[in-house]
Amino acid sequence: MFNKNRIILVTNDDGITSGGIRALVEVMQEFGTVVVVAPDKPQSAMGHAITINFPLRLAKVDIFDDVEAYACSGTPVDCVKLAVDKILHRKPDLCVSGINHGANSSINVIYSGTLSAAMEASLEKIPAIGFSLLDYSSKADMSPSKKYVRIITGHMLKSGVPDFHLLNVNIPHLPENQIKGIKICRQAKANWEEEFDERKDPQGRTYYWLTGNFINRDSGTDTDIHALENGYVSVVPVQHDLTAYEDVKFLKENWKFE
Amino acid sequence: MFNKNRIILVTNDDGITSGGIRALVEVMQEFGTVVVVAPDKPQSAMGHAITINFPLRLAKVDIFDDVEAYACSGTPVDCVKLAVDKILHRKPDLCVSGINHGANSSINVIYSGTLSAAMEASLEKIPAIGFSLLDYSSKADMSPSKKYVRIITGHMLKSGVPDFHLLNVNIPHLPENQIKGIKICRQAKANWEEEFDERKDPQGRTYYWLTGNFINRDSGTDTDIHALENGYVSVVPVQHDLTAYEDVKFLKENWKFE
Repeated sequence: MFNKNRIILVTNDDGITSGGIRALVEVMQEFGTVVVVAPDKPQSAMGHAITINFPLRLAKVDIFDDVEAYACSGTPVDCVKLAVDKILHRKPDLCVSGINHGANSSINVIYSGTLSAAMEASLEKIPAIGFSLLDYSSKADMSPSKKYVRIITGHMLKSGVPDFHLLNVNIPHLPENQIKGIKICRQAKANWEEEFDERKDPQGRTYYWLTGNFINRDSGTDTDIHALENGYVSVVPVQHDLTAYEDVKFLKENWKFE
Repeated sequence: MFNKNRIILVTNDDGITSGGIRALVEVMQEFGTVVVVAPDKPQSAMGHAITINFPLRLAKVDIFDDVEAYACSGTPVDCVKLAVDKILHRKPDLCVSGINHGANSSINVIYSGTLSAAMEASLEKIPAIGFSLLDYSSKADMSPSKKYVRIITGHMLKSGVPDFHLLNVNIPHLPENQIKGIKICRQAKANWEEEFDERKDPQGRTYYWLTGNFINRDSGTDTDIHALENGYVSVVPVQHDLTAYEDVKFLKENWKFE
């Protein structure tokens, strides 16, 4: 599948020095010419944030073998935008984000910097995939993930998804021989219920750390969470239209404004 | 419609001192007991970012007549989470965000801090509305908007939308007598094409400011952009499931993993 004219943009939200992006770069080198533009510091949970109140910086770094790489002062979405406009001067043939250290299944698609980077690429009609491993450890073993990144990237390059759509891939935290395969899924209905850890600083002033409990309110067997809980890699095709179409009809019939 | 037992949480992304949130508070006081928790500085374009790498602060402020108000050091989504857990100690009966100084129609729903705050509330089953005015000026005249905020909030409290859904309301930048009414719409298919303004700092180092061009690739007459361009207030019902369902079927049939 290697094609040196195929330009693959790699980014993430854990930062350019994370283990996950290194694993992703290694797999992508089997497919084409890799360019990395990734945050210079952790940018987890940045969602689809972009930087408009501060100027952005890019620094060329030499930390991957034979790969042009840049550390960016902005968010994951900024990285994709800067890469297209100022580094590649064209749209790449594929954009991959990750491998995230931690799950991005279900509703995490809207909080995740990893997914938002891939989403930004897809908005610009670039084929895009976000990869996440269900292991938060910075020392996570990436070898089982690399196998599935390779398989799914191969399919994406061969068969693709419709323009402006992307894939959200999550990989269970299991040894390779216990992963049962890949399942195409829908996003599970779930949310986070926040809890804050309240503390006092040395000056006696209160501050809060966000924590939270994940609430899965979806008992379907076709969801990403169900697949992951049963040892499968989950693949959810994602699009950007958030319209609640059934509500459009309801509101037109029931909300009389005159 | 006033009910003092109705708790209404007001937030935004332009910051607690903006003109838009002041207008929104004034209208909400006609409906119930208002509590404001809003960012202590502008947080536009923060998307669904949450703060996990820094602790959060809350400061009680006295800038609205007869309204309990807190400035929060975090993002709009953080504000909603902190309000529920640490200030209200319950879910409010309504959460409104805005009035944003600038459009949040179409794809801006995923970049907007204003909408993400409302979205966070809706994820927690709180009825929620994001309001935006198509005027970026910090001195924007909010009086035409107040009329439509009042009408739409009244309908929301009376008829509602399904649990976990929310409304994205945009108001055209027109004198009140030129606004033709309210249209229920779908999100227009569009995106931003980035451009960066490249400059040199006094040390000769390069930095970039994000700018961009909005690309509307949707010629439909049922979209929010079409309504706004024709002098209507747009109301888009929004949900959080980003699954591309038609792709699920396609991928199951066409991507053979064994």
